Amino acid sequence: MTGQPPPDRAPLTVGEAGEREIIALVRARVPPPPAHVVLGIGDDAAVVEPARNHLEVLTTDAAIEGVHFDRRYVDAGSIGHRALAANLSDLAAMGATPRAALLSLALPQALPLAELDALLRGLLDLAAAHRLPLVGGNVTRSPGPLVVDVTLTGAVKRRKVLTRGGGRPGDELYVTGTVGGAAAGLAWLQRQAGAAAPTTSDDAIGDAVARFLRPEPRLRFGVIAGRTRAASAAIDLSDGLADAVRQVAEASGTGALVEAEACPVHPAGRAVFGPAPEAVLRSALTGGEDYELLLAVPRRATRRLAAAARLARLAVTRIGALTPDPAVRLRVDGHEVALPVGFEHFR
Amino acid sequence: MTGQPPPDRAPLTVGEAGEREIIALVRARVPPPPAHVVLGIGDDAAVVEPARNHLEVLTTDAAIEGVHFDRRYVDAGSIGHRALAANLSDLAAMGATPRAALLSLALPQALPLAELDALLRGLLDLAAAHRLPLVGGNVTRSPGPLVVDVTLTGAVKRRKVLTRGGGRPGDELYVTGTVGGAAAGLAWLQRQAGAAAPTTSDDAIGDAVARFLRPEPRLRFGVIAGRTRAASAAIDLSDGLADAVRQVAEASGTGALVEAEACPVHPAGRAVFGPAPEAVLRSALTGGEDYELLLAVPRRATRRLAAAARLARLAVTRIGALTPDPAVRLRVDGHEVALPVGFEHFR
Repeated sequence: MTGQPPPDRAPLTVGEAGEREIIALVRARVPPPPAHVVLGIGDDAAVVEPARNHLEVLTTDAAIEGVHFDRRYVDAGSIGHRALAANLSDLAAMGATPRAALLSLALPQALPLAELDALLRGLLDLAAAHRLPLVGGNVTRSPGPLVVDVTLTGAVKRRKVLTRGGGRPGDELYVTGTVGGAAAGLAWLQRQAGAAAPTTSDDAIGDAVARFLRPEPRLRFGVIAGRTRAASAAIDLSDGLADAVRQVAEASGTGALVEAEACPVHPAGRAVFGPAPEAVLRSALTGGEDYELLLAVPRRATRRLAAAARLARLAVTRIGALTPDPAVRLRVDGHEVALPVGFEHFR
Repeated sequence: MTGQPPPDRAPLTVGEAGEREIIALVRARVPPPPAHVVLGIGDDAAVVEPARNHLEVLTTDAAIEGVHFDRRYVDAGSIGHRALAANLSDLAAMGATPRAALLSLALPQALPLAELDALLRGLLDLAAAHRLPLVGGNVTRSPGPLVVDVTLTGAVKRRKVLTRGGGRPGDELYVTGTVGGAAAGLAWLQRQAGAAAPTTSDDAIGDAVARFLRPEPRLRFGVIAGRTRAASAAIDLSDGLADAVRQVAEASGTGALVEAEACPVHPAGRAVFGPAPEAVLRSALTGGEDYELLLAVPRRATRRLAAAARLARLAVTRIGALTPDPAVRLRVDGHEVALPVGFEHFR
């Protein structure tokens, strides 16, 4: 007997399978594309029909093992879901409808094929929920971490684009959903990393973990807010609420004042970060990956914002306003302090 | 004195600089965009105007340290150039004109900022040569290799798309330029990897090294061939000539016969791989990254192909034909053998 695997054994890892077999696996998982896909996976490039009378929105975002996820406590399906969700959230922040996805994978040779399959299913299930076709991509091996790089195209009408820079002093700041849930869910998962299959009977923690592992990008709300001109500016919370406020203020040439007490902090924060309100607030402001939206809303558009929230079945909360004074501040316990800085990928 | 760097020292590495500074570096290097770019780098996503009455072509391709390049003998400018060239070559193979580029970078913390800057310049110089705007992207740190993932959009008219699957038995196979140059250049660089600044007085080797480090994607030729319907099928040679022939035959539902003596083997092959004709031929057939094009050409289109080659100032060589028999063969020294298999990223 030699150390070679028997020739009739099915391949178990990415390295045993090879590029062709992996592409065949992807193709087998991809459902029949919608009519605007002229040529899907399998040629040198994909060909799609652009949306008539729309601008095209382009975004790309990579999820890298050891930076954006840890395979010890993020299952493969969630890795795929999260990689796509981060990109969908960018489209939501522009008010765009998704049109086509490209997937570029760099795979460690030892990655089990079953994990790759679960990753694909996580990504494709979320894509299907948004009627988004996977039209192409690239597969290569990685000598280091698993890399999942997604690129999306979306469509938006010319006068309905939401940008970061449209805010004006006096516009009110609103945030969708809750903040700090993903950070609390991540922190909880990190603490349980030794446990085999961590479970909790605490509903808030369970929800926070789900928010971290399977975030729901706010596409419907973003599109309605753009179409109805309910916001003057928008951004997603990929790098945290504090960072989002700073980016909108900077791009709009304004300052901002955020009311700490108004922020819709996820209820798991207290259970995970302890009873000190400062720690919970800080994690809610600076914790990334909530994939909610921050919007600047002129007072005349308040009703349209409420209508968009109702249609998208989403809570929105007023947390402050843009100011003529260029400082970006937080009011907490009657004092005004500088808003903490957000997550930075290189720190 | 402590081990900390003095506070007024300019950052030298990616890790010292951080995400914002890196994005600022990219923005400073990017020239003003053309009119079809509505919103470039700096928001959640880019916004572009689609080309009127054109289909959109989408492609993505990653260049990964340790798989696609080795920083010991590929300079940073060439890494950037090659990452974009691989994607442009995919558009060329579809007959598409480039419209917009997205760049997703995963950077090791220790990467010198000067290297990143050189990489960007290599990429942006090639983009400028094709009037291609960089409209957005993503920057993150990498705990492992340097990853340069490029996504391109291109435009092509509906009836002018070149695919792999349009060939018919009897169509002749043509290849642009020469084959095996990149493989010879790479092999020569690998042998010189110890030398500080390898130089050669052999013009053929110098040309082969240039073909490996700074390949020229055949965009103009691809667009003209598509527009004039000079080819029934096309593919680029990213994974070698043999692989390209197999892919076109498979997608077209045909076989193929390639004449070894007809292949335009790069003259550096003999100097690098030795005088044995088999070794030179094998490297020319299976060596990847030449980024030339293989075309299937119906006999009635031979003149149009010659005209496209003249307009693009490019040599094209007939190397064989598609066959009704599904086998993919090579005729060498009067014998017919199976065409060798090409480069596979996972082997």
